[in-house]
Amino acid sequence: MATTLPDNASLEQDLVVAQAAVTKQGDTVRSLKASLKEKKADKAQVEAAIEQLKNLKASLDLKQKEFQSASGKTSSTNREAFRDAVKTVLERRLFYIPSFEIYGSVAGFYDYGPPGCALKQNFTQFWRQHFVLEESMLEVECPAVTPEVVLKASGHVDRFTDLMVTDVVTGDCHRADHLLEAALQALLDGKPKPLDTQERQAVHHLLATVEELNVKQLGDALEQYGVKAPETNNDISRPFPFNLMFKTSIGPRGDQVGYLRPETAQGIFVNFRHLLYSNGGKLPFAAAQIGQSFRNEISPRAGLLRVREFTQAEIEHFCNPDAKDHPKFQSIAREQPLLFSRALQMSEEKQPQAMQLGDAVSQSIIANQTLAYFIGRTYLFLLRVGINPKRLRFRQHLANEMAHYAEDCWDAEVECSYGWVECVGLADRSAYDLRAHATKSKTDMSAYEPFPDGSRMVDVLVAAVDKREVGKTYKKDGKAITEALESLPEEEKACMQADLAAGKPCKVTVGDAEFAITAAMVQIKQEKKKLTGRNFVPSVIEPSFGVGRIIYCMFEHCYATRKGDEKRSLFHFKPIVAPVKATVFPLFAQPTFIDQAQAVAALLTAAGLSTIVDSTGASIGKRYARTDEIGVPFAVTVDHQTLEDSTVTVRDRDSTTQVRVPIAEVQALLTELVKGRTWESMQQQYPTHASAADDN
Amino acid sequence: MATTLPDNASLEQDLVVAQAAVTKQGDTVRSLKASLKEKKADKAQVEAAIEQLKNLKASLDLKQKEFQSASGKTSSTNREAFRDAVKTVLERRLFYIPSFEIYGSVAGFYDYGPPGCALKQNFTQFWRQHFVLEESMLEVECPAVTPEVVLKASGHVDRFTDLMVTDVVTGDCHRADHLLEAALQALLDGKPKPLDTQERQAVHHLLATVEELNVKQLGDALEQYGVKAPETNNDISRPFPFNLMFKTSIGPRGDQVGYLRPETAQGIFVNFRHLLYSNGGKLPFAAAQIGQSFRNEISPRAGLLRVREFTQAEIEHFCNPDAKDHPKFQSIAREQPLLFSRALQMSEEKQPQAMQLGDAVSQSIIANQTLAYFIGRTYLFLLRVGINPKRLRFRQHLANEMAHYAEDCWDAEVECSYGWVECVGLADRSAYDLRAHATKSKTDMSAYEPFPDGSRMVDVLVAAVDKREVGKTYKKDGKAITEALESLPEEEKACMQADLAAGKPCKVTVGDAEFAITAAMVQIKQEKKKLTGRNFVPSVIEPSFGVGRIIYCMFEHCYATRKGDEKRSLFHFKPIVAPVKATVFPLFAQPTFIDQAQAVAALLTAAGLSTIVDSTGASIGKRYARTDEIGVPFAVTVDHQTLEDSTVTVRDRDSTTQVRVPIAEVQALLTELVKGRTWESMQQQYPTHASAADDN
Repeated sequence: MATTLPDNASLEQDLVVAQAAVTKQGDTVRSLKASLKEKKADKAQVEAAIEQLKNLKASLDLKQKEFQSASGKTSSTNREAFRDAVKTVLERRLFYIPSFEIYGSVAGFYDYGPPGCALKQNFTQFWRQHFVLEESMLEVECPAVTPEVVLKASGHVDRFTDLMVTDVVTGDCHRADHLLEAALQALLDGKPKPLDTQERQAVHHLLATVEELNVKQLGDALEQYGVKAPETNNDISRPFPFNLMFKTSIGPRGDQVGYLRPETAQGIFVNFRHLLYSNGGKLPFAAAQIGQSFRNEISPRAGLLRVREFTQAEIEHFCNPDAKDHPKFQSIAREQPLLFSRALQMSEEKQPQAMQLGDAVSQSIIANQTLAYFIGRTYLFLLRVGINPKRLRFRQHLANEMAHYAEDCWDAEVECSYGWVECVGLADRSAYDLRAHATKSKTDMSAYEPFPDGSRMVDVLVAAVDKREVGKTYKKDGKAITEALESLPEEEKACMQADLAAGKPCKVTVGDAEFAITAAMVQIKQEKKKLTGRNFVPSVIEPSFGVGRIIYCMFEHCYATRKGDEKRSLFHFKPIVAPVKATVFPLFAQPTFIDQAQAVAALLTAAGLSTIVDSTGASIGKRYARTDEIGVPFAVTVDHQTLEDSTVTVRDRDSTTQVRVPIAEVQALLTELVKGRTWESMQQQYPTHASAADDN
Repeated sequence: MATTLPDNASLEQDLVVAQAAVTKQGDTVRSLKASLKEKKADKAQVEAAIEQLKNLKASLDLKQKEFQSASGKTSSTNREAFRDAVKTVLERRLFYIPSFEIYGSVAGFYDYGPPGCALKQNFTQFWRQHFVLEESMLEVECPAVTPEVVLKASGHVDRFTDLMVTDVVTGDCHRADHLLEAALQALLDGKPKPLDTQERQAVHHLLATVEELNVKQLGDALEQYGVKAPETNNDISRPFPFNLMFKTSIGPRGDQVGYLRPETAQGIFVNFRHLLYSNGGKLPFAAAQIGQSFRNEISPRAGLLRVREFTQAEIEHFCNPDAKDHPKFQSIAREQPLLFSRALQMSEEKQPQAMQLGDAVSQSIIANQTLAYFIGRTYLFLLRVGINPKRLRFRQHLANEMAHYAEDCWDAEVECSYGWVECVGLADRSAYDLRAHATKSKTDMSAYEPFPDGSRMVDVLVAAVDKREVGKTYKKDGKAITEALESLPEEEKACMQADLAAGKPCKVTVGDAEFAITAAMVQIKQEKKKLTGRNFVPSVIEPSFGVGRIIYCMFEHCYATRKGDEKRSLFHFKPIVAPVKATVFPLFAQPTFIDQAQAVAALLTAAGLSTIVDSTGASIGKRYARTDEIGVPFAVTVDHQTLEDSTVTVRDRDSTTQVRVPIAEVQALLTELVKGRTWESMQQQYPTHASAADDN
């Protein structure tokens, strides 16, 4: 069994390639035929193309038989085969394209071609509607190029690394964890030889904990199992951290280091004071940013899922750490996403459970209402854009996965052919980020809130400065030093109090200078003070969306083939994100029909509905197949009756049913359908149109 | 006169700063008062703020008197003062913010804050509607990180430079042309001493031609006039070219050079073959891209106009070089933008003229219909977003400004406080870009078009290879060499024919190897062949929009103060781009009014109309002033009558008139107003609401 598998896989691979070639050649023939009709190709070209198609089909047939006799199954049940089938359509219809292809491409970079770009635009516009507008968020746009100091404060300069090993002969770079995982997996598969039970157990354990190994442990494990460089089989170096940020230099002098931001969030944090001011000084509020982020991955793979430049949509919700309730929580409390809590992950069954978010909060499974509210809104968003709810789960971070400062984290994971993929991270990051920037930039990042119950007497630390003593030592600097001491933050006063008491050396900073302070100069003492409110550094709850990942999963979830015709693929895109909302077909390629079709298309375009006109001479069935393939939800056909009574037929991609609608109403109706009106309600309002066969 | 100017300028500068401080403090007082009402601030805070406002006002008064007695005029007539007034509002209301401000900012980087970001989004969405949707363009999205080979082919690696000089002591960098211009300008201003007529003339001439100087000429001129480094007055180096691209490294090895793209266009060019395929192999078609571009400017200044990271919206229209007519030309032929042709620029008056685009093409002022069509569409676009047509001109490049390959170039220039600013470049770039990539990548970048009149007999060059002779010399490579010779492009066959005839050495490339070819091996001869069409590299017509620059000019063109109240500023943003479409006001800060206002706002938000609710206790006049200041076009007020008959008042920002509208209709009406319905038509449909004073 183990020896026949690779053969089958390679046969199946051949099959996919052969299938793709047939589909592509079929398209070529179809378009050449259309060109022939318009006298833009000659007959010899068409005949040659048909001949080639025949050969390709024969070769495909042969391969199919070969595969079936070897494996006893058809290929569509296979994850990789499914992925390749989707990919074939996506690439052929230019949803995405490896970037710089004419120069041999560069791993980890993709272009969105016309339908992909349109879909992505619709996606981000809908995100903006769902989050920014409906939640009254403050959206900002910050540069990608970021000076080092910002990313030093955030920790990215020091810690945003992957462990890397190099091939000692060729210098090729590899991710250390990937190599170890592959080697362990091979051992489990019995290569080079079967393991005994004890060995198996050890390998299993190590494989499960690879992500938690530190640099030394990972290096030791690689040595222990004698892992070599892939392909060359050369020795590898010990692992070392490689920073994943793209580095550059700002300005002509070459001495100001900059990086391409690895996330959009920092742009929001550094603007916190402005945003708080813009919100009238009040909490809570949320800010958002949609933009490009950059990660110089060591060896990008997994197509659109792990790329070096990608679009993020991030939200930072700022709130009082003692008030994480959410006023709109009830609106999502009854939603029931699949939750994969810490407890369920540690349980025997390891199965997520559908649970009302209200219950999850009241049972303290989710830390607070605000985090749960965003889980709910994210759930609704993902469903609206076409993610299958059965293949979507919210997985809570285990204790060892969370940063020390985080209060609670959940990932929206979507299942696709690559397994469960993290598409959205939702984290309660406490006040970590604001504090980090407050310290580094010496900027006040606190908010003020009055006590709900009026004023309170509280204990505060006061610096009683002996001005004469300070003046004696520091002369003209005395005044500034006194002021600096008096305005020290509470925490620093406490430190100084302790240090002075312990006889340790103390100092105070004025501008760029530091001055030593003695116990004779200042006394730190506690006093009662009447306060009407308090200052605090707000907590941050951060939902962070990987736009490309969600879109990729959506591609897979929306992909299907027409029942009874496995070769006719389509995308069931939701109308709100579909790249093209409607195709307009003149039933015949004659001027009367074409002109009318153009007029209808212009109407739709004017309403902001992306529309294409397909006036090639192909049969209506073939033309339907063509727009199905890029997921156009509605088709409008101009037929003989149109010329008589100014009505057109509108076809629904998913049900393939049609209704007849007056041209005067078609703009408003399609606008409603795109916004979410159901096709069923259309069928009740308008007469059904019995169509010719859909697949002729 | 010359000596009093700087003093006045500095007085005026003080005035602007003082005015800004007053305005800002006024806002602080207003928001504190609101907080007091909501018990979120205490009385002492408000009193202290009012006291400070009083002091600031007194100081402003003093400065105003000082300035007027010194200059005899008020400051608003002054370009810099106007710019500062606009900038004060823009920065205070967070339209934009210097990036990384808490770390001291970095020159040339700006963030768009909430209203700026919303406006920019609306701007690009409208661009998409006006160009991509209405012209059926193919939109793509490509990465910013670009491998060196692409920008080597485009010429950016070798030629995208500015000339720089360094301060020989401090190492500070300066743009050589800027230093020379400033020095020459100072000479004309009589510093250090007045010039005689002949000297003046020489300086004038040099100043007019600074942009055309090469590196040696510029260096000589700097030496001749003894130009020193600004501020330090140190000697400067000779000028040298500095490449303006941000450099980085792709992947972990560190040996793959990449740059941040300096323009979005290259992403389209490298995808040309895919896009042509996607368009069914037919020309003409246009592709578009909106995205970030990066230029590491030597010393960025002029605020939003010259930044290091900016958004471009570029179109590449591909067409047959022999067919540059445009099918929709008639739709813009009667538009009359101000054209500043080459001839007008060289004329005595140097004034642009309003001219119908149809006439401009028929008189050969604009090279072709397609270029003129895009000038027309650009003109309409700029007017729709709020650019003043009287301050917009299309200036043709003079012969010395154009690249050698360009057929014709026009810039849309907009006048603002910085002078005439290039906002859109419209160029017929012939086949330059596609040819450059075809050569570098060895990819066919041609399109095929059948002859309109059927087949033709044409002369072609044929390589008749003596296979025996080739085989004798090259053995097993003979076959590949024969094929390579037979498939040489027409041009190379012609070259080889000439070289062989002249007895020059010839060679052919197969894979990576080159092989010498002798006259004995091949004979290149002319033959007649029947062809049904021809292959050619398409021409490119490129409209390229600088989004930030247009937006900045729009800010200035839309800025105004209320008649009779110079302190109340507003932006007359067109509703389609306005950051917020409507503010909803509960007349009183009471729950019944506030709840109703929230309900109306939710209705508007659901229709995609960005809406804010201002339920602070401030007077309605003050609240109007606040939303005027960020250019909200419409205000909806919930008043007593609302509670009785479910109607609200809708106020038009520009006329300050109001109508009364049923709540049930307000969503549809505002949607129409945003899309372009006139306020006058609203006034005809709905009863006027006589409002309380707008400025109480």
